[in-house]
Amino acid sequence: MKKFNSELENVKMSPIVEISEEIKKKALEFEKTGKSFIKFQRGEIDFPTPDYIVEVAIKGLKEKKLTKYPQSGGEPFFKDAILEKLAFENNAKNLERENIVVTYGGMEALELSFKLFKEGAGFSPCWSPIFENFAPYSNIKFIEVPLSESFEVNYNLLEKTLKKVEFFYFNTPHNPTGKIFSEEEVTNISEMCKKNNVYLISDEAYEKIIYDDKKHFSPASLNLENIISCFTFSKTYSMTGFRLGYLATRDKKAAELLRLGNYTQTAGVVTFLQYAGAEALKNKIEGEKAVNLMIKEYKKRRDDLYDGLEKIKGIKINKPEGAFYMFPNFSEFMPKKLNGKKRDYYLYNLLMENGIGVVYGSCFGRGFEDNIRLSFSATPVSEIQEAVKRFRNLFNKN
Amino acid sequence: MKKFNSELENVKMSPIVEISEEIKKKALEFEKTGKSFIKFQRGEIDFPTPDYIVEVAIKGLKEKKLTKYPQSGGEPFFKDAILEKLAFENNAKNLERENIVVTYGGMEALELSFKLFKEGAGFSPCWSPIFENFAPYSNIKFIEVPLSESFEVNYNLLEKTLKKVEFFYFNTPHNPTGKIFSEEEVTNISEMCKKNNVYLISDEAYEKIIYDDKKHFSPASLNLENIISCFTFSKTYSMTGFRLGYLATRDKKAAELLRLGNYTQTAGVVTFLQYAGAEALKNKIEGEKAVNLMIKEYKKRRDDLYDGLEKIKGIKINKPEGAFYMFPNFSEFMPKKLNGKKRDYYLYNLLMENGIGVVYGSCFGRGFEDNIRLSFSATPVSEIQEAVKRFRNLFNKN
Repeated sequence: MKKFNSELENVKMSPIVEISEEIKKKALEFEKTGKSFIKFQRGEIDFPTPDYIVEVAIKGLKEKKLTKYPQSGGEPFFKDAILEKLAFENNAKNLERENIVVTYGGMEALELSFKLFKEGAGFSPCWSPIFENFAPYSNIKFIEVPLSESFEVNYNLLEKTLKKVEFFYFNTPHNPTGKIFSEEEVTNISEMCKKNNVYLISDEAYEKIIYDDKKHFSPASLNLENIISCFTFSKTYSMTGFRLGYLATRDKKAAELLRLGNYTQTAGVVTFLQYAGAEALKNKIEGEKAVNLMIKEYKKRRDDLYDGLEKIKGIKINKPEGAFYMFPNFSEFMPKKLNGKKRDYYLYNLLMENGIGVVYGSCFGRGFEDNIRLSFSATPVSEIQEAVKRFRNLFNKN
Repeated sequence: MKKFNSELENVKMSPIVEISEEIKKKALEFEKTGKSFIKFQRGEIDFPTPDYIVEVAIKGLKEKKLTKYPQSGGEPFFKDAILEKLAFENNAKNLERENIVVTYGGMEALELSFKLFKEGAGFSPCWSPIFENFAPYSNIKFIEVPLSESFEVNYNLLEKTLKKVEFFYFNTPHNPTGKIFSEEEVTNISEMCKKNNVYLISDEAYEKIIYDDKKHFSPASLNLENIISCFTFSKTYSMTGFRLGYLATRDKKAAELLRLGNYTQTAGVVTFLQYAGAEALKNKIEGEKAVNLMIKEYKKRRDDLYDGLEKIKGIKINKPEGAFYMFPNFSEFMPKKLNGKKRDYYLYNLLMENGIGVVYGSCFGRGFEDNIRLSFSATPVSEIQEAVKRFRNLFNKN
């Protein structure tokens, strides 16, 4: 069999996709017993795209001049809407059109940014496509910098690692922990990167999915040339199928190369969808309404899930401040002397047998075999309450 | 200044894009004299996307379940429509869903296919993004195999070259010459590739833009595993802004890697647009109507342009059989001892001064400094007639 270019040979589908397929099948079997199967494995969203955005996409389609070749890097009207959003919502000022590249979702923004480099690092736990897709696709050696058990930054380890790499991947609000890095943490990390001539690739996909009085602090607000901030419409506006995103960097040379990369890969982003993207950002009243509706529901789910699991003695769990993930640790419940793949799958299989679908922790980096990721982006409150009951039956030792 | 990954550092914007920008400016100046400026540089199309396709895209948007994450590689209903089209229109039978990858236009289909390899070749003249984008982006050494003056294949040279490479890029109907490779030529080239363990990357963007009684013969119809056929909706259905395309290969391993590549770059193609793509292919009555309308107009333009230029003694010109390009040669009119950049730009500048915008021949490979590419995809007949007059004034020696 022909051996192709190793960069493609080494790429894998995210295990989360495989897990989802397996869970779909198992769920059907399980439901034959008459009990419900509760899914926490997905990053998909159970809200529809807000009407005001869909309407403008339709208008764009009808005005047929918007069905012609896109301008490479993004249409000027869309870039202007993005610049205004960055200035007023992310406090990222003094950026120009040449600092922006419109992309196919956060996915392409990140994939292109990784392609600029050969050696990188990032905190773990870490979103799995970094390991399975972006690093191998650009032939990048990627070093994990573990967060502490309560997801704190070890600055000594960080600085030691930064001396060995060209870029640092940084994600806030954080998948899979739900942590929001504070202004102080973001500033420290960004400046430590700058000091070590390291680019910061900042993944801000969940910037608007925030609970309580927390705030998202964007590295783009810092006046630093070494930052590439990647954004998507997928999560904020429930637009996963639109594949719309963008990146911003003060380094105009990097922006120009990333624009060329986007052009080479796709000849640019679907023209009339940029019209919808601009409207999503500019219509602040409708935008806020849609986001608030979503957050209100996510918050209920988070509270019920967290409050339920937190009461079970032995489960170590941090309350998510943003995004829609939880990454509890079950070390107390793991059988002794269970290693390798068996340990990786232990919790996953145990929960599956009890009608709960999750992603196993080892997908997110080394040393997380005793964790699981629970996504509550598409799990209704009633199902969360049932799931909590089952967790209690399985793990409550009292 | 930071030196980034050489694969990105070496990519360039197609000179055709720069030329278009320059021509836009010059045209405004020229038109101040009261005379019209006639543009032949673009590959853009002056027909709108047919209504029946736009309507279905709108329907897809309204049925909001189609705004969720796409299935990687393409939605099953879209793949089925593609398989039917391949079987009935390209005579490419016995293909399955796993042989198809849906992409962002022909651009991503080609870009991904190139990424499988490290060494390739293709006929010249050759579409310029091959040189400027795909080859450097995947760090590929690309060898030009010149066609003869009348665009015939030199099989000895081809076979010698195939011994040195992993893939051969092949484009029929051909940009920039308008040549349609015959069934015999396609079969010979494909089998010569097979014999030499070389993959054929077949670019069939203009498969439907065909004049007179000519036929497009697709390499996909041959029962060979070493063929990757790349198709786009851009030209056939005037959907350049939709960025919709696909590839087909009998090599399932290659298809799987290309699917992973598409997933890694973009997480898949905009979901509801696949709905529009399926309808474009399945509604054969409306599809043929739209294509025939377009061809009828292109044919008038081709005939007027060809007949006009062919009468000017000294211009060497082949009548385009497909696509909407012409690649005449002006060696007879070139000043002696004009070399390098000066020779590259000579015809381009001369024509620009006379209100005609073209792409200079050296964009399409080595040894084509005395050619120009004329695209008639967006130039009305009345302008073509005026252009012919100007060519006659400039080059008619009698």
